Amino acid sequence: MDPKLGRMTLKEWVAIESDSVQPVPRFRQELFRMMAVAADTLQRLGAHVTSVDMGSQQLPDGQSLPIPPVILAELGNDPTKGTVCFYGHLDVQPADQGNGWLTDPYVLTEVDGKLYGRGATDNKGPVLAWINAVSAFRALEQDLPVNIKFIIEGMEEAGSVALEELVEKEKNRFFSGVDYIVISDNLWISQRKPAITYGTRGNSYFMVEVKCRDQDFHSGTFGGILHEPMADLVALLGSLVDSSGHILVPGIYDEVAPLTEEEINTYKAIHLDLEEYRNSSRVEKFLFDTKEEILMHLWRYPSLSIHGIEGAFDEPGAKTVIPGQVIGKFSIRLVPHMNVSVVEKQVTRHLEDVFSKRNSSNKMVVSMTLGLHPWIANINDTQYLAAKRAIRTVFGTEPDMIRDGSTIPIAKMFQEIVHKSVVLIPLGAVDDGEHSQNEKINRWNYIEGTKLFAAFFLEMAQLH
Amino acid sequence: MDPKLGRMTLKEWVAIESDSVQPVPRFRQELFRMMAVAADTLQRLGAHVTSVDMGSQQLPDGQSLPIPPVILAELGNDPTKGTVCFYGHLDVQPADQGNGWLTDPYVLTEVDGKLYGRGATDNKGPVLAWINAVSAFRALEQDLPVNIKFIIEGMEEAGSVALEELVEKEKNRFFSGVDYIVISDNLWISQRKPAITYGTRGNSYFMVEVKCRDQDFHSGTFGGILHEPMADLVALLGSLVDSSGHILVPGIYDEVAPLTEEEINTYKAIHLDLEEYRNSSRVEKFLFDTKEEILMHLWRYPSLSIHGIEGAFDEPGAKTVIPGQVIGKFSIRLVPHMNVSVVEKQVTRHLEDVFSKRNSSNKMVVSMTLGLHPWIANINDTQYLAAKRAIRTVFGTEPDMIRDGSTIPIAKMFQEIVHKSVVLIPLGAVDDGEHSQNEKINRWNYIEGTKLFAAFFLEMAQLH
Repeated sequence: MDPKLGRMTLKEWVAIESDSVQPVPRFRQELFRMMAVAADTLQRLGAHVTSVDMGSQQLPDGQSLPIPPVILAELGNDPTKGTVCFYGHLDVQPADQGNGWLTDPYVLTEVDGKLYGRGATDNKGPVLAWINAVSAFRALEQDLPVNIKFIIEGMEEAGSVALEELVEKEKNRFFSGVDYIVISDNLWISQRKPAITYGTRGNSYFMVEVKCRDQDFHSGTFGGILHEPMADLVALLGSLVDSSGHILVPGIYDEVAPLTEEEINTYKAIHLDLEEYRNSSRVEKFLFDTKEEILMHLWRYPSLSIHGIEGAFDEPGAKTVIPGQVIGKFSIRLVPHMNVSVVEKQVTRHLEDVFSKRNSSNKMVVSMTLGLHPWIANINDTQYLAAKRAIRTVFGTEPDMIRDGSTIPIAKMFQEIVHKSVVLIPLGAVDDGEHSQNEKINRWNYIEGTKLFAAFFLEMAQLH
Repeated sequence: MDPKLGRMTLKEWVAIESDSVQPVPRFRQELFRMMAVAADTLQRLGAHVTSVDMGSQQLPDGQSLPIPPVILAELGNDPTKGTVCFYGHLDVQPADQGNGWLTDPYVLTEVDGKLYGRGATDNKGPVLAWINAVSAFRALEQDLPVNIKFIIEGMEEAGSVALEELVEKEKNRFFSGVDYIVISDNLWISQRKPAITYGTRGNSYFMVEVKCRDQDFHSGTFGGILHEPMADLVALLGSLVDSSGHILVPGIYDEVAPLTEEEINTYKAIHLDLEEYRNSSRVEKFLFDTKEEILMHLWRYPSLSIHGIEGAFDEPGAKTVIPGQVIGKFSIRLVPHMNVSVVEKQVTRHLEDVFSKRNSSNKMVVSMTLGLHPWIANINDTQYLAAKRAIRTVFGTEPDMIRDGSTIPIAKMFQEIVHKSVVLIPLGAVDDGEHSQNEKINRWNYIEGTKLFAAFFLEMAQLH
C-alpha cells in the first residue's frame, strides 16, 4: 500500500461536499457524486459492487429529496475463509468556513502532521484506511486472509434514512455469509492509545415549535402585548436540564441500568489523564472531577444538549424583531435500558405540562425527529479478542476497552437484525473534533490505522 | 406632482439593498449608493445639498466599516417664512427572500393596492412623500410656503451611529434657522385613520455572551460532562420576563412615570377596534383584553423581547452540536422616566446574579450595544395644531393622538440638542409590517400622505 496514494484519495474525497444534514438539492448532488466515486474505487479494487437505489425522502415541509444509494460490495467468496463486513459512511456534518474553520473545510490541509477537513475522521478517513488495508494485500499480491464485504451509506449524519429497511431485506442475502461486522466511526479516548468500543449511546432528537403567526413582529410595534414565542421557547428549553447537567424530565432516569461494582472497576482500569483531556478539549472545568464520574456521564448516563433555535434572529448585529414562529432543537443521548418511545412520551408530556402552565395563546408542537437505540456488546466475543491482538501487534499496547457517548445506531441495528457480533475499532484521536470546526485526522492515525486493519484481517483468518 | 413618477422612484429606491444592520461591506456599498441617489434627487429638486462624511465605525470584532454620509439639504431661505426640517432615513432592516417573503423584498411589487418591498414604509416611502410634496409646488410653479430643510441618514436601523455628534456640531449652523422638526417614521394605529405621534419608547439592546471555548462540541463526545453554554444562556434569557409579559429584572419599574387619571382619558378617546386590530395583526389573543391596557403596554410601560441567539445551530434539519460560544440578544423598550444607564446596571447585575447561582465554569459577558432614550412632546405646540388642521383638510377627520411603542431616538435627540418642537406625522397603516417579512405601504397612504405634507406646508405658513 502506498500511504501517499491513500492520502491523496482522502483529499479527493474530502473535497466532495457530501453534507446530508442540510436538506438542499446541491448537497444531495454532492452525496450522489460521493457514492459514485466510492463505488468506482471499490470496483478498481476488484470488488463486486452494487449501488442500491434508496428512493426518496419526504421532508416535513413537503419537499421530496432523493436518498443517495447504499453501496454493497464483496471481495472474495472463499467458503474456507471467514467473512468480515465493514460498515462506513461518506456523508458529513455541515461545515461553514466563516464559522471558526481555520482552513477551507473541503480542502484537506496538512498542518503539523494533522490532516484538516470535514469528514477527515468522520468517516471518510477510516473508510479509506480499510480500503487501503485491502489494497496493501493486493499490492503485495497476497490473497486476502478473509472474505471482505462493505456496506457504505451516505445518510448517517441524517439518521441513516431507509438503511434499516435495506439491512432487513438483505438479512438473508448480502448478510447471510457474514461472520463479523466492523465499524470504525468513533474516536479513541486518548491522543495516542488505541481503543476498542463495546457500547454506544442512543439518541432522541426533539424539535419543539412555538408559533404565534408565520410572520415576525417589530418589537416596538408589538412588544408588551404579545405572548412572545421566544419567551415561551426559552422557558420550555430552560425546563429540561439543570446547571449540574441533571435532566429534569420526570421519569427519564427510571430505566437507566443500575451501576454494578464490576462495571465501576472497568472504568477504573482505563487510563485517562484528566489534565491532558481537559487541555486537549480546551475546557476549563468539567461538571465532574473524577475520571470515573466523567466516563460514566459520557457512556452510561443519559445527557441532554440544546443545539439551537431555528426562526429567531441568529446573525451578527442587532435586529429588533419578535420572531413569530421558532423551533427549539435538543436531543437526549440514551443509555441501556432506556426506550426510545417511552422517552418520546416523557419529553412530550413534560413540555406540554410546562407550556400549559404558561397560559400562552401560542401553539406548541413537539416532535421527535430521530430515535436511535443505545447499543452494548459482549467483550468476550472472538472478534474482540482478535482486535485486541491486532492492536498489540501494531501498537505494542493493550487497548482501552471503552464505550462511546455518540450514537452509532447501525451497531444496534446489525446486532438486532443480522444477529452477528459487532465491534467498533476507532482510528481517530480524542481531539479530532468530529462534527465541529477544524475536524482532522492525524497522519499517524490514518497510516497506523491502515496497518491495524491489515493485522486484524490476519488475526480474523486465524479464528476460522 | 405626478404620483406615478413618485411610485416609480420608490421602486428604484427599494431596489437598493441599503441594509445597515448586517455589518458587511456589500451592504455598506449599497448604503453609499442609496445616499448618492437621494442626494441627486434633492439636487434635481433645486436643493442645496451637502453630503457629510461620517467617518468609519469600529465593530466589536475589530473590523472597521465606513459610515454612509448624512445628507443635509436646504430649499429656500426666505427670512419671512418659517423653516421646517424633515428627518428621514434610507437604510433598512435585513430582508431575506427565503424567510417568509412572498415577493422579492428588493423589488417593489403592487398587489391589491399594496406596494410590497423592504423599506416601502420604513422609511423610503415617507421620505419620498415629503419630496413629492415639495415637487408638487415646483410642478405647479408655486413658491414653497415654508423654507424646507432635510436631514437624511443611512444608519437609523443600526442606532443612528455618529448622528448625535453631527447634530451637536450643526446645532448653531444647519439647525439655527429651523423652527420645527418633522419626522415620519412610524405607523398609524388603524388601517384608515391618520394619527399624530407625541411620544416614543426608548430602547436598550443587550447581548449576553456565554463561552466555554471558541469551537463547538459533538453532543455524543461531550454531552453529559460540560456546563453547556446553551443551557446557561437559556436559563439567563428565561430569567428576564414572565409569561404575563412582566419584566423580572429587579427595580426595572421603579422610575416608570405614575399613571394619572387624565392620561387614562387620552387612551379612552382613541378609536381602536380590538377585533380588527387582532385580525390585521393575525394574533389570536393578546396579553390584555381591553383597549386601554393594550395601548398602555405598547406606549407607557416597558417591554422586553428576546430576539434570538447567535452561534447556535439555526438551520433546518438536525445537527447534534453543543455550541461552544453563544450570544443571546434581547432588548427592553424604555418609557418616561426610565434612565438608560440605570437600566444597563440593573440588567447586568440581574444576569450576573442568575449566572453566579448556576456555578457554571463558562464565561459570561453582558453588553448593552444600544441605549436610546424615550421621548415625549407637548401636544399643544403650534405645529401639532397645524398638523391636526392639515389632516382635517386632506382626510376630513380628527387624527388619533398617539404614542409609538417603537424607538425614534432622533426625536429625543432633536428635542434635547436643538431645543425645537418635534412632531411625528406617520403615513403608513397599522398593518404595514415594518421590520418584518412582506413590509408594504398602501398606494393610498403614499398618495394621501404626499397631499398631507403639502397641506401641512400651507398650514405652517399661516403660523408664521
